[in-house]
Amino acid sequence: MSLYQINYNFHGYSTPTKKHSKVKAIITEVAGYADVAKQIIELAVNGAAQNRSYRRLTDFTDTIGNRVSGSHNLEMAIKYMYNALKQDGLDVYLEPVKIPHWIRGNESAEMVLPRAKRLAILGLSSSVATPPEGIEAEVLVVQSFEELKKRASEAQGKIVVFNQPFVSYGETVAYRLNGASEAAKLGAVATLIRSITPFSINSPHTGMQSYQNGVKQIPTACITLEDAELMQRMAQRGQKIVVRLTMDAKSLPAADSFNTVAEIKGWQHPEQVVLLSGHLDSWDVGQGAMDDGGGAMISWEALSLIRDLGLRPRRTLRTVLWTAEEQGGVGAQQYYDLHKVNISNFDLVMESDTGTFAPVALQFTGSGAARKVMEEVVKLLAPINTTKLEKHGEGTDISPWMQAGVPGASLHVADSRYFWFHHSEGDTMTVQNPRDMDLCSALWAVVAFVVGDLQDMLPR
Amino acid sequence: MSLYQINYNFHGYSTPTKKHSKVKAIITEVAGYADVAKQIIELAVNGAAQNRSYRRLTDFTDTIGNRVSGSHNLEMAIKYMYNALKQDGLDVYLEPVKIPHWIRGNESAEMVLPRAKRLAILGLSSSVATPPEGIEAEVLVVQSFEELKKRASEAQGKIVVFNQPFVSYGETVAYRLNGASEAAKLGAVATLIRSITPFSINSPHTGMQSYQNGVKQIPTACITLEDAELMQRMAQRGQKIVVRLTMDAKSLPAADSFNTVAEIKGWQHPEQVVLLSGHLDSWDVGQGAMDDGGGAMISWEALSLIRDLGLRPRRTLRTVLWTAEEQGGVGAQQYYDLHKVNISNFDLVMESDTGTFAPVALQFTGSGAARKVMEEVVKLLAPINTTKLEKHGEGTDISPWMQAGVPGASLHVADSRYFWFHHSEGDTMTVQNPRDMDLCSALWAVVAFVVGDLQDMLPR
Repeated sequence: MSLYQINYNFHGYSTPTKKHSKVKAIITEVAGYADVAKQIIELAVNGAAQNRSYRRLTDFTDTIGNRVSGSHNLEMAIKYMYNALKQDGLDVYLEPVKIPHWIRGNESAEMVLPRAKRLAILGLSSSVATPPEGIEAEVLVVQSFEELKKRASEAQGKIVVFNQPFVSYGETVAYRLNGASEAAKLGAVATLIRSITPFSINSPHTGMQSYQNGVKQIPTACITLEDAELMQRMAQRGQKIVVRLTMDAKSLPAADSFNTVAEIKGWQHPEQVVLLSGHLDSWDVGQGAMDDGGGAMISWEALSLIRDLGLRPRRTLRTVLWTAEEQGGVGAQQYYDLHKVNISNFDLVMESDTGTFAPVALQFTGSGAARKVMEEVVKLLAPINTTKLEKHGEGTDISPWMQAGVPGASLHVADSRYFWFHHSEGDTMTVQNPRDMDLCSALWAVVAFVVGDLQDMLPR
Repeated sequence: MSLYQINYNFHGYSTPTKKHSKVKAIITEVAGYADVAKQIIELAVNGAAQNRSYRRLTDFTDTIGNRVSGSHNLEMAIKYMYNALKQDGLDVYLEPVKIPHWIRGNESAEMVLPRAKRLAILGLSSSVATPPEGIEAEVLVVQSFEELKKRASEAQGKIVVFNQPFVSYGETVAYRLNGASEAAKLGAVATLIRSITPFSINSPHTGMQSYQNGVKQIPTACITLEDAELMQRMAQRGQKIVVRLTMDAKSLPAADSFNTVAEIKGWQHPEQVVLLSGHLDSWDVGQGAMDDGGGAMISWEALSLIRDLGLRPRRTLRTVLWTAEEQGGVGAQQYYDLHKVNISNFDLVMESDTGTFAPVALQFTGSGAARKVMEEVVKLLAPINTTKLEKHGEGTDISPWMQAGVPGASLHVADSRYFWFHHSEGDTMTVQNPRDMDLCSALWAVVAFVVGDLQDMLPR
């Protein structure tokens, strides 16, 4: 049974309208890529490119290590990737970006009462320092912003410990982002926030936080799930808890950096772009293998697979390796500001930044008409069992484009442990798997190539 | 159908022998404890004692923290438990023991080449220090003792990194125990050993190690799974790896400590003993909640449950909270040496030291005749679905008794994550669960009471 027939049956026996025949045309056109999709997948998963994206990620992270915004390591990472992409025969260029430069410095915390205990902490990005001798203060433990409000009168002069349960990253991260300012409004002198993770081996996690305008800036760090629970129990017993926090973090003037761009130029519409992306920066702990070395590598690998097969699409395939994503998508925002004048030429923006574990589906945001096309495209992924198209493509770095109406796509991967490692010392090559990365690369390459080669851009 | 009938059918229609009638008598006798077993279980799991062993463990670990052999914390822990057991109305006494006193001191390691990277380490117990300026040396990475032998000529002057895969704790721990001496024999200047765990969030694990007689003592520490794999990859690339290791560990003269003993005296044979046990000491990282606060608390809780119900068995139920188990069962060995003269009065020795997660079965070592009795005893645990009797009771602290022929029992728990936390900062209350501890306590109490109350001691 041909694809044409499936579609005909699905729509019943009504006289084909113009819309119907357009849909049928797309179905036929996309189905025509079945062989090329198989070739890409075969090359990535069983062929000469097997394990390549994993090997590239290993070489990269083992050589550079982590690479936080403003660091020398991030500079080296960009040089490393510029050279690697060049050597891979791609068109490569750098676009300058000014990025935040915050330095953690030395930091420590210890419980003084009811007994001495060292607390494992990670200061949060853009946190101010404590005085050199540290801050020693009594602790107020709360489990939510609501509880903090109810106990507002108790916060003055205290270190507020947020022991919020982990619900989901999207929901629970609000405590890390806003905890310091919410506590400072009530006179707190510092905040210690339970790390945003469902699981811990006494592992603190760092991340971004935002001071609100007009609110006193107080030092803020994440503690471990274990220590947050410990202090909760002590508070429940009515024990007085005193903690000494010392941080000599500082913010320096903005640093020079770059978005790293590599392309396969389109043969027919070089000005039209399918954009693939991941970010090169990481936090200053762990190795940034998962977040987001993996996303960067599969976005490179996709171009390599297409180039290896001697394929060249109608439109340009452009891989952008963002800088300073972790500081709030700084590189990506500047990229958008610079290139939005050409927004009508941006066909699809893709981002991988939630891990490169076993792919489950493609997530997609776009018009109903665009979704119909994408539903056909993911059918080409049948050889790797990832033919599901889910709602809501997402990603910090592609969101400006999606908000302006450009179709966006992201990877849904089997990421049950993602937040165990995220922004912690546990983000290393040990959590990555070569085959999973091959599958992600194959998916990424097929989607980018086919969308970039269709007669028409995706309908907005 | 009565138990008698089951047995009769099982043995067929042969004329009952003396042995058969004895077996039948035991079946009948043990079955007579069904109601008391239900009472114990009900009290522990749904009654007034619900969550009590968990709460006791929480209060204990939150108050004391970790308690390594020779530390002030271990002294405080013994005082704490002595008072708590007294207040619980039990007969309590302390038996003095001399125990090892090793102090970790400051320790750090960093990779110098091929790039700078801090390595998370935990020095191993009884390790010697490095010179104050540390040891900086090239690294030799091996995956097994066999590989070390093959590459013996390369070890001179090197820091040997053992990157052995985790097979099982019992098998893989040989690298931690013997790694230093095996490397020192070949001229190595220090060893860094991959932590003995199947999973890591860059978490180092400590533990015991043993220097061999006549072999130079070199500094030895565990590194993380992640860093061991990193150095393996670097070595495979042919990169020169240099590490600087600094440890100021030291061994002090033996310290004074105690085994803590609490009893319910037997009414008929007070000199005969069913011994329940766990150890009070821990490592100097984490909180010693799992290893072995949980085992200590259920061994206390078992007595509390029996006392709460106004039960008093024929024989004495004796809970011993060992000291310095982690240094090689030091307290338990002394206890054996002191009390082996009465070995004929030791009915059953029980130890919980592999976690107090959901109980799965009782493990038992003893004669075939004793096993027959125990098979009936565990049937009383039907209300909590733990009627399985497995082979091989085990435990560092009861092994001298078992080797001398005393029946031994231990808990088999659903411990899939036990070694993730074991001897690391992750051994905290967060890994414990109140209901699991109730189930363990109930099982422990039923077995101890029934064995301690049967007409006869278990046959050797």
